[in-house]
Amino acid sequence: MRRTIERGGVDLVGFDADDTLWRSQEHFDAVEARTAEICQRHVDLDAAELGRRLYAVESRNLATLGYGAKAFTLSLVEHAVAVTDGAITAAEITELVALGKDLLERPVELLPDAAEVVARTAARHPTVLITKGDLVHQEAKLERSGLAERFTRVEIVSEKDTATYARILRELGVRPERFVMVGNSLRSDCAPVLALGGAAVHVPAASVWVHEDVEVPDRSERLLSVEGLAALPDALERLGCAAPWAASG
Amino acid sequence: MRRTIERGGVDLVGFDADDTLWRSQEHFDAVEARTAEICQRHVDLDAAELGRRLYAVESRNLATLGYGAKAFTLSLVEHAVAVTDGAITAAEITELVALGKDLLERPVELLPDAAEVVARTAARHPTVLITKGDLVHQEAKLERSGLAERFTRVEIVSEKDTATYARILRELGVRPERFVMVGNSLRSDCAPVLALGGAAVHVPAASVWVHEDVEVPDRSERLLSVEGLAALPDALERLGCAAPWAASG
Repeated sequence: MRRTIERGGVDLVGFDADDTLWRSQEHFDAVEARTAEICQRHVDLDAAELGRRLYAVESRNLATLGYGAKAFTLSLVEHAVAVTDGAITAAEITELVALGKDLLERPVELLPDAAEVVARTAARHPTVLITKGDLVHQEAKLERSGLAERFTRVEIVSEKDTATYARILRELGVRPERFVMVGNSLRSDCAPVLALGGAAVHVPAASVWVHEDVEVPDRSERLLSVEGLAALPDALERLGCAAPWAASG
Repeated sequence: MRRTIERGGVDLVGFDADDTLWRSQEHFDAVEARTAEICQRHVDLDAAELGRRLYAVESRNLATLGYGAKAFTLSLVEHAVAVTDGAITAAEITELVALGKDLLERPVELLPDAAEVVARTAARHPTVLITKGDLVHQEAKLERSGLAERFTRVEIVSEKDTATYARILRELGVRPERFVMVGNSLRSDCAPVLALGGAAVHVPAASVWVHEDVEVPDRSERLLSVEGLAALPDALERLGCAAPWAASG
């Protein structure tokens, strides 16, 4: 795919999925809250402390389990047994596993303007969906979203770092400075793309997992923040006309 | 990658990973055996019956959880609670989760001749690794295998069916009739590639998961079976010279 769109300086637009195109984190939050209620039958800890302990388990497991609902569910089980000192029952553990499976099976709820903005963007630029997490879950959500046909390519990856973005751009024959990534996470969607010389549009989400909640040192002109997806077409227009692209556009 | 190797009729060689390049199924079998021992503390069922019940849970969960060690571990927990009617303890469930994490963390044991045959094949043809299962686990195993640099491209997919192979070949610009897939599973590595008009080399493994143990109706000349990977170079040579490629080679 070496097609070059001769307008502005944007050859490829990347979209994040979870909490950029459809709701995700709030569903994980709800499962965490329900798990806290179950654990509190056996142990006297408040939700904030249980949350800190769960995140500690998730962080320890990240290299082995990766991201996504199955990893989260396994960490939930490990956390619940540990925090209740083994007092949690088999029936309660079954409920945790069922909550995890519900996460995987629930319908997709698109965020406001997602369908229209993706369609409008895809009509003007090649687009790639770049999402991390559980392979089978992300594929299922994309299918349920009705947006699958809009994307030139879909990349479900284990980590969204500079190496991953560099590989994708290399395989698609796109120069980083002509790539714009759109997403809710400064850590995963913006910082690595800026580091490669690309641009990013940050669309903040309602709920942010603590893991993704970082500051980006490079608050350059190549990073725009918008209130919602409806502002994306204007943001792409501004980025397409801005340096350093004007010279190469 | 539209480079065409003008020798024989093979433009791309695909390799399966689990039980083709490195040992896998026997490790899952060992975890299943240990789970049976734990369950048998609580219920009077033999290993064969426990195996049938576990496979029933795995089959029901396949569409939601997909393949791989995390899916397997969640199914193990669900199965163990159900089959012991909730008598399994939290400590025993923790052991099941730990066994699943051990699967994800264990070193890679290459099968005989794998490193040499992959290197030799990669020196003559573009190669793609096509494997299904857990994204983060497959990436970790590839890294640990020392073979990552041999592959032109790596595709970790949720299902190895005709649609998946067709997408990969389309993205790489390779005609199916000039593609050879190498793997231990008739269901996942051979049948869908033959259906597209490609060729396959079947390298049977020591242990086969019942899910992959199917007959392939099309026992055509485009399917070769070899005893081990050492026979692959000769098999590729034979396929490269055989019809229908000779005409287009």
